[in-house]
Amino acid sequence: MNINAQMVKELREKTSAGMMDCKKALKATEGDLEKAIEYLRKKGMDAAASKFSRQALSGAVGSYIHLYGKIGVLVEINCETDFVANTGEFKEFVKDVAMQITASNPKFISREDVPEDVIEKEKEIFYAQVEKSGKPTSVIDKIIEGKLDKYFKENCLKEQIFIKDSSKNINQLLLELIAKLGENIVIKRFSRFQLGEEI
Amino acid sequence: MNINAQMVKELREKTSAGMMDCKKALKATEGDLEKAIEYLRKKGMDAAASKFSRQALSGAVGSYIHLYGKIGVLVEINCETDFVANTGEFKEFVKDVAMQITASNPKFISREDVPEDVIEKEKEIFYAQVEKSGKPTSVIDKIIEGKLDKYFKENCLKEQIFIKDSSKNINQLLLELIAKLGENIVIKRFSRFQLGEEI
Repeated sequence: MNINAQMVKELREKTSAGMMDCKKALKATEGDLEKAIEYLRKKGMDAAASKFSRQALSGAVGSYIHLYGKIGVLVEINCETDFVANTGEFKEFVKDVAMQITASNPKFISREDVPEDVIEKEKEIFYAQVEKSGKPTSVIDKIIEGKLDKYFKENCLKEQIFIKDSSKNINQLLLELIAKLGENIVIKRFSRFQLGEEI
Repeated sequence: MNINAQMVKELREKTSAGMMDCKKALKATEGDLEKAIEYLRKKGMDAAASKFSRQALSGAVGSYIHLYGKIGVLVEINCETDFVANTGEFKEFVKDVAMQITASNPKFISREDVPEDVIEKEKEIFYAQVEKSGKPTSVIDKIIEGKLDKYFKENCLKEQIFIKDSSKNINQLLLELIAKLGENIVIKRFSRFQLGEEI
């Protein structure tokens, strides 16, 4: 296994260990980065373990607290530079998305994030609702497809109608901002806590 | 299976379906509440599905945003009545806990929340650090026990030293508040987003 400079650099960035220690760790683990990190930790050379979680992207974490603490939302939105993160437009978008999540309670960011077993479960429920209708299978399939589409539009943040302007959904709002600010912008994650709900 | 009034009441509260529908659903599912809810959904009688997540407890959701959005924290803390939730002491505690999480980055609420595989992994790393020391096994065991205890104190919110008063940890602060306000108070959950960290 040939240990090249790029690999050493990457390991150093992740652990802040010395160059020779990094080379040694990579040789011992045949260039496996994850194993090399663990190797350094085991040798006690992980002084900068906290750097694992350092910032890799720009953007902002924003929050919204509704009704004096009955509902709270935390959201992380990324962009490419601090310059864009500091614009009024970006800050307003962060606030709007936090408010949207507070009001409309999405479960996912986009339909690609909905797990397959959730989709199957919903389909099963939709099917049970229509199977007795006596309609032909092709019609039932169309109905279920429509219901599933409605489910995505209600539960996926990017497909929800924007609460402050019903002429667009959140994804359109996002695309407009990307066009305006000229950087890629990503809604990375969110948490929504409603007081007393079961978890 | 005898369907009693208490079961019907509970199902009605959870679904807002009519009394006769609830009785029928419970009979059809032999009194299984979860199955009865699904039964009503399949029959299309789940108009109030949103009520599933309604408030069951008092308290507050609080947030803290640090460094103009570089770190954000959301926390839910429960108490028994709105009266206590509205006291200055309770509100201050919510704020203090959110700040503590921001500053000290706990991974868990208490040591009972640390998964067994995380403990095993840490033990393995600690063992690798000391096994070459030549010390007797009983001493090594004591060292590992001490390191594990240190891990809990650093990573479990309730065991962390309070950032605003190093004479106590968060659990002591919580117990003082419980004694003062006379209600059970529970730190239920938290989210901490650090801009750009890997998830």
